[in-house]
Amino acid sequence: MKVLIVHAHPERRSFNAAMLARSLAVLASEGHETVVSDLYGMGFNPVASGSDFRERRFPERLYYDREQKHSVSRGSFSDDIAAEIAKLVWCDVLILHFPLWWFSVPAILKGWLDRTFANGVAYGGGRRYDTGGLRGRRAMVVTSTAAFEGMCGPGGLVGELDVVLWPIQNGTLAYSGFDVLPPFVSYSVSFVDDRTRDGYFAAYEARLRTLDTTAPIDFHPLDDFGPDWRLKPGITPRAVGQMRSGPAS
Amino acid sequence: MKVLIVHAHPERRSFNAAMLARSLAVLASEGHETVVSDLYGMGFNPVASGSDFRERRFPERLYYDREQKHSVSRGSFSDDIAAEIAKLVWCDVLILHFPLWWFSVPAILKGWLDRTFANGVAYGGGRRYDTGGLRGRRAMVVTSTAAFEGMCGPGGLVGELDVVLWPIQNGTLAYSGFDVLPPFVSYSVSFVDDRTRDGYFAAYEARLRTLDTTAPIDFHPLDDFGPDWRLKPGITPRAVGQMRSGPAS
Repeated sequence: MKVLIVHAHPERRSFNAAMLARSLAVLASEGHETVVSDLYGMGFNPVASGSDFRERRFPERLYYDREQKHSVSRGSFSDDIAAEIAKLVWCDVLILHFPLWWFSVPAILKGWLDRTFANGVAYGGGRRYDTGGLRGRRAMVVTSTAAFEGMCGPGGLVGELDVVLWPIQNGTLAYSGFDVLPPFVSYSVSFVDDRTRDGYFAAYEARLRTLDTTAPIDFHPLDDFGPDWRLKPGITPRAVGQMRSGPAS
Repeated sequence: MKVLIVHAHPERRSFNAAMLARSLAVLASEGHETVVSDLYGMGFNPVASGSDFRERRFPERLYYDREQKHSVSRGSFSDDIAAEIAKLVWCDVLILHFPLWWFSVPAILKGWLDRTFANGVAYGGGRRYDTGGLRGRRAMVVTSTAAFEGMCGPGGLVGELDVVLWPIQNGTLAYSGFDVLPPFVSYSVSFVDDRTRDGYFAAYEARLRTLDTTAPIDFHPLDDFGPDWRLKPGITPRAVGQMRSGPAS
């Protein structure tokens, strides 16, 4: 398979960098072809702006998503965006590799999503979720956190990871058509000993060796929703975003 | 009150920019003092890196959060971060003003949070949630989306806003001690007529006039969690992140 790893960490000696090195070795041994976008190493610009388009359909006012669509048809994205879109369309598997900062991705990775997951590529013309522009591909979040595992989950201080990662896993990856594999999370990385750290590497290696067989997270397909964009009568909400919050019964 | 508005939109003719102008007029008429961080206008750098610190405690390897703590004690943040932290500490109310991109904030605003909500300022030394470093202040998300209102909520395609905004409202603002007011969301702004748009402005104005009396979202205080960082026995989960997901019963 063709694997794109988008890596977002400022420090080459970090746990995340070690995970990246491990990924490359394992994926090569599995016979996969791997491309890395090391966002800090590339000096990637995360700020979406009018400069992202070499020509503008609406020069007088920036409609970012409309200009994306225009640039898809004209091939007029700025070079940095065009290069990332090419990798995205090329890949069979997308791995997002990042430390969890403020329950989300670092800004440099958010900007990669803002600029690369373009209207006309990732979605558009009614294509989303299982009809999304990047359907047929798999994606996985690989992240690390200072939080303890017990903090992450129902009743925990951080909360359920399904909730924490909803904007990325559902709202971005699944929205664009990816089958989203369960996340791989390394907990309390600032505090663990070498043995636990080696355990994370081994567990991650096992996940990498089963990229093509691991069952994805069960998000609702587009057809579960009616013309009012709400779950059709008789469809039971299966994903956390579609459930009703309120006092537990 | 002292109000800090952090505004993140690349286009001066946008709906968000119009909302910002409205905010300034209303807040002035209410007698509040307002400061705006217009992130695009400032050319704000959202990428956290070692350059954020004028001196380093650990020069050989970047531990971003530890260097933040060190820079708080030494007054050695880069000038742009120091200026934003000063505004943050100064304010009684923080308003985050942004278009919802990929179920989240634009990268330029994520980077403002990554770099300004520093260890030693927003949290640290066990201070978080109602004991967070910015306690005693109020915060509000003001956002716009192309999505229809019916898509946002239980059963909707986008999902519950409590879930979508969990990383920002709970994981960032409440975590840092803010009382978080219900978000103000303008739906399907790309498609609405002038009358609906005026309705948004009027409704937003009403929210601005009740900044000091609106009841905040009910997130769990730190004391609801035991030494294992899970809700104590007998505490009923009230916030969506602490509830157990799974098939609705």
